[in-house]
Amino acid sequence: MPLNPNAKIEITAFRWVPEFAQGVVRDLRARWALEEAGLDYRVRLLGQERPLEYLKEQPFDQVPCFNDGEVRIFESGAIVQYIGEQSDALLPRDKQGKFRAVQWTYAALNSVEPAILNLLLIDIFYQGEEWAKLRRPGAEDFTKLKLKRVSDWLGDKQWLEGDRFTIGDLVMVTVLRFLRHTDLVDQVPNLAAYVKRAEARPAFKQALGDQLAAYADNQPQPEGAAA
Amino acid sequence: MPLNPNAKIEITAFRWVPEFAQGVVRDLRARWALEEAGLDYRVRLLGQERPLEYLKEQPFDQVPCFNDGEVRIFESGAIVQYIGEQSDALLPRDKQGKFRAVQWTYAALNSVEPAILNLLLIDIFYQGEEWAKLRRPGAEDFTKLKLKRVSDWLGDKQWLEGDRFTIGDLVMVTVLRFLRHTDLVDQVPNLAAYVKRAEARPAFKQALGDQLAAYADNQPQPEGAAA
Repeated sequence: MPLNPNAKIEITAFRWVPEFAQGVVRDLRARWALEEAGLDYRVRLLGQERPLEYLKEQPFDQVPCFNDGEVRIFESGAIVQYIGEQSDALLPRDKQGKFRAVQWTYAALNSVEPAILNLLLIDIFYQGEEWAKLRRPGAEDFTKLKLKRVSDWLGDKQWLEGDRFTIGDLVMVTVLRFLRHTDLVDQVPNLAAYVKRAEARPAFKQALGDQLAAYADNQPQPEGAAA
Repeated sequence: MPLNPNAKIEITAFRWVPEFAQGVVRDLRARWALEEAGLDYRVRLLGQERPLEYLKEQPFDQVPCFNDGEVRIFESGAIVQYIGEQSDALLPRDKQGKFRAVQWTYAALNSVEPAILNLLLIDIFYQGEEWAKLRRPGAEDFTKLKLKRVSDWLGDKQWLEGDRFTIGDLVMVTVLRFLRHTDLVDQVPNLAAYVKRAEARPAFKQALGDQLAAYADNQPQPEGAAA
């Protein structure tokens, strides 16, 4: 589904981010869900310095925000769930199926992501700091435990709740992708295969391509290049 | 609403936890939501060592799980949302109102809680460790920034989305209460008042009392006390 500048749905994303963040910024979740649901959308690109008024849309100064003219929300988990509720492709209609998927969305964001992001921050942002060196082994062990918990649950199932891909898988995979700078997911064969299976979905490829295309179009010029 | 051993709804909780955790374990969220919704429930108490089969109910070995005979889920965020969908008291019925509340539930658990729990772990679990001493100032600054973001949004509103208490407030307040061992929330007057306002609700008091009562009933005996 191509981006459509006249679409009813608007999301926000960053114009450009450094390479370590390209392909994992959270607007990817919204883009992916919209592609799975077959909904076209437009993107409002923001610079690294947001205007102060953006805090009225997104109090934590992050992306994405979502607005379809009827509902205006932030937080990728809530956005993905809202999109899911509009599409059988992402969220079962029966109560148990729906809330099992919603539960995995929360699990990805609250029971798994904090451990993984902590390790990412240690490796990328705090790399040279003494506390980061001392803390890293424990942070890695905690991440491995979380991966084991998800792996044990997944077993030989295709998706977290069986044969059907849901918003829970969509968000969990984007969380696991935060570890791409390590081999921790590759050390867990069923999880590595799970991530690959998700990344092979056409909707994922389209969403990732569209996120990266914006960064390529808005690559900062080296100083003096404009001369 | 008294606990009802014959209630249709069952949640899991810990039989007993050390004092630093009493009053903040996550089954409090489920209890509080059930009290606000006027739904009676029973509790299955678990020891600090759970049987291996518990991982089939809760892959991360945590509490609470929820089961009403129709829906069986874990993750406090999902449980609170499911309870919210059954009660006007917790979740507006219009799409925008509903998803604003859902958004704040995710925000509490993904944009605020990780910073706060990181500080809690440094202060309680890793207190003596060198990395924790070195990291604490930065972890506190990051927590303060998160509190400022929520405070700036809240302003002089009663609840996050105005006059109406929702699941977003319920979860946000339980997240802020993880800082009770510090004065960080008290340093932000509108946030401190917001937490007090929530804690004054009869449903909160009942839920907290019931959680603490189980711990009091199951206080470990000092060695030799049985003699």
